[in-house]
Amino acid sequence: MPALTDQMLPMITNATLQRRLDTRTKPQGSLGALETLAVRIGLALDTETPVFRAPQMFVFAGDHGIATDGVSAYPQSVTSQMLLNYLHGGAAINVLARQHGISLRVVDAGVASDTGEHPSLVARAIARGTRNFRVEPAMTQAQCTQALDTGRALAQEALSAGSNALLFGEMGIGNTACASMLLHRRTGWSLEDCVGRGTGLDDVGLARKRERLAAASARRPEKLSPLETIAEYGGFELAMITGALLATADAKCIAVIDGFAVSVAALLAIEIDPRVRTRCIFSHCSAEHAHRNLLAHLDVKPLLDLGMRLGEGTGAAMAWPIIDAAARLMTEMASFESAGVDDKAS
Amino acid sequence: MPALTDQMLPMITNATLQRRLDTRTKPQGSLGALETLAVRIGLALDTETPVFRAPQMFVFAGDHGIATDGVSAYPQSVTSQMLLNYLHGGAAINVLARQHGISLRVVDAGVASDTGEHPSLVARAIARGTRNFRVEPAMTQAQCTQALDTGRALAQEALSAGSNALLFGEMGIGNTACASMLLHRRTGWSLEDCVGRGTGLDDVGLARKRERLAAASARRPEKLSPLETIAEYGGFELAMITGALLATADAKCIAVIDGFAVSVAALLAIEIDPRVRTRCIFSHCSAEHAHRNLLAHLDVKPLLDLGMRLGEGTGAAMAWPIIDAAARLMTEMASFESAGVDDKAS
Repeated sequence: MPALTDQMLPMITNATLQRRLDTRTKPQGSLGALETLAVRIGLALDTETPVFRAPQMFVFAGDHGIATDGVSAYPQSVTSQMLLNYLHGGAAINVLARQHGISLRVVDAGVASDTGEHPSLVARAIARGTRNFRVEPAMTQAQCTQALDTGRALAQEALSAGSNALLFGEMGIGNTACASMLLHRRTGWSLEDCVGRGTGLDDVGLARKRERLAAASARRPEKLSPLETIAEYGGFELAMITGALLATADAKCIAVIDGFAVSVAALLAIEIDPRVRTRCIFSHCSAEHAHRNLLAHLDVKPLLDLGMRLGEGTGAAMAWPIIDAAARLMTEMASFESAGVDDKAS
Repeated sequence: MPALTDQMLPMITNATLQRRLDTRTKPQGSLGALETLAVRIGLALDTETPVFRAPQMFVFAGDHGIATDGVSAYPQSVTSQMLLNYLHGGAAINVLARQHGISLRVVDAGVASDTGEHPSLVARAIARGTRNFRVEPAMTQAQCTQALDTGRALAQEALSAGSNALLFGEMGIGNTACASMLLHRRTGWSLEDCVGRGTGLDDVGLARKRERLAAASARRPEKLSPLETIAEYGGFELAMITGALLATADAKCIAVIDGFAVSVAALLAIEIDPRVRTRCIFSHCSAEHAHRNLLAHLDVKPLLDLGMRLGEGTGAAMAWPIIDAAARLMTEMASFESAGVDDKAS
């Protein structure tokens, strides 16, 4: 972990921010969770008048060797097809990014089939999908490092270009299996607790997914470091998200976490650098089995609980206006004094 | 209740809308509560490609005779001061309306002190506040009718001008006491279950509020009709919201319900005309004591649960982008066929 420098020491305190909220024209505490959120944003952006600039969504797409084991309700071909759907603007995340003025970058982190060239595709494939982690490591340690570095560089590029709000989404057939596996190995929770239906497995599919992951876990029973775990069982898209989150720790910005898979990437990033936690805003609780427990483990309360389980960054995009609202309320509301409104009867 | 005419018979069915959702490029059901919401919007707007136009927020402000009984943490002067704060753009609802491109109309439904003229104030005061309903009826039946008609006319004006989404907020010192009283009399629930801390009463204040409302209820123990209840215990701002909601029943539009007080106005509107229910979208669950039970009683699940208790329409405004997103996802997402994406493995 890099040493703290003077530049990184926060100037704004929790008390300053709470005092600002308490003098706005509203009963104290009446904005509920928005007040907690506004304070977190003020601390992360190091100002009592936060303004978000150029919110940037990254959707990282990757394929998974484990997908050939039948752990998803969809065929692997869907990964590249959906990537093209993003590039053509027809997916849910396109609709939501347009609605909220969020810039969208679609990253090929390692899709199995050739997606062709496209002017707005960010081509950063580490390989054409990971290997099947049931029988061998998903990637080499060098590939893992490359994926983390790629994610970090993409985040730094966006921050350097002036964004102070990065949002993260993912897509890849088989990647809830991958995320469940990472969660199992980092927390020690049972596979029953970690594995869910993903895009819509039936009972037989769910049993098969658990059985394949149990075999995969048994292949390397010893304790692994976070980086070893990513190389052994990870996905290129999840590794890039972890890398991108690591880049936020040093910056005056927030990182909006989507659903289950991105939350697992955040768990890994926080393990590697605990300062990442102060940047993360968890957008929603997904319907994917293990997400609620993971959020509780991280001691966070998500903003939305709408039973979504689509990924793509859709939960993060849905929560964006709430996050933006918290900043705007802090910055733009009048005070009792400036508005000439009587405060609470004494 | 007006008779159904041909024009009002819906053309679009639940099944048509669900089929459209199921063919969009996402796993079936993966948008969770947004799918239920999209279907409700499609039915209300009578189209499978809903597009919201000119969303219109009304904040109705009124004063309450019961406020002189010390049922609020704030002095009555705050009602007119906050009204001016809205007109100057410094309140929470101004910030949120600006953020979301929601047009805001501030209505003086019956504020106690002279608020002066202001170009953007909708001056419709029925009287300078209601009478103290602990000792006498809050308003005459003629005033009640006038308030309902005023609300209805304002809603019809906005709908005629092209809006198909009306959002409702309220403000008025003492109006959670009023809303609690209306809830108590319409549901028969105990005052313990109906009365909360409003803008922030302490335990002594809360006990006093309950005791004053018990005295008020004892003054007219007989069963009252919805309209008699509003006249006896209502507020001008809540009556206008009830009237405005009645206007939505016949229109291809939605009505976004804010927190506790607006939900009580919706309860009354639905009692008067059950068709109103199909237009109402309940935005959030407020921290005010009785709101969660009221929402359960109405058999609705609100979109947000952020512990807000500010009123002003702030919960409705916070939920607006979610509601708009549901419509946009339904209308703008590509289908599996049009995007060339393989559907679930068979």
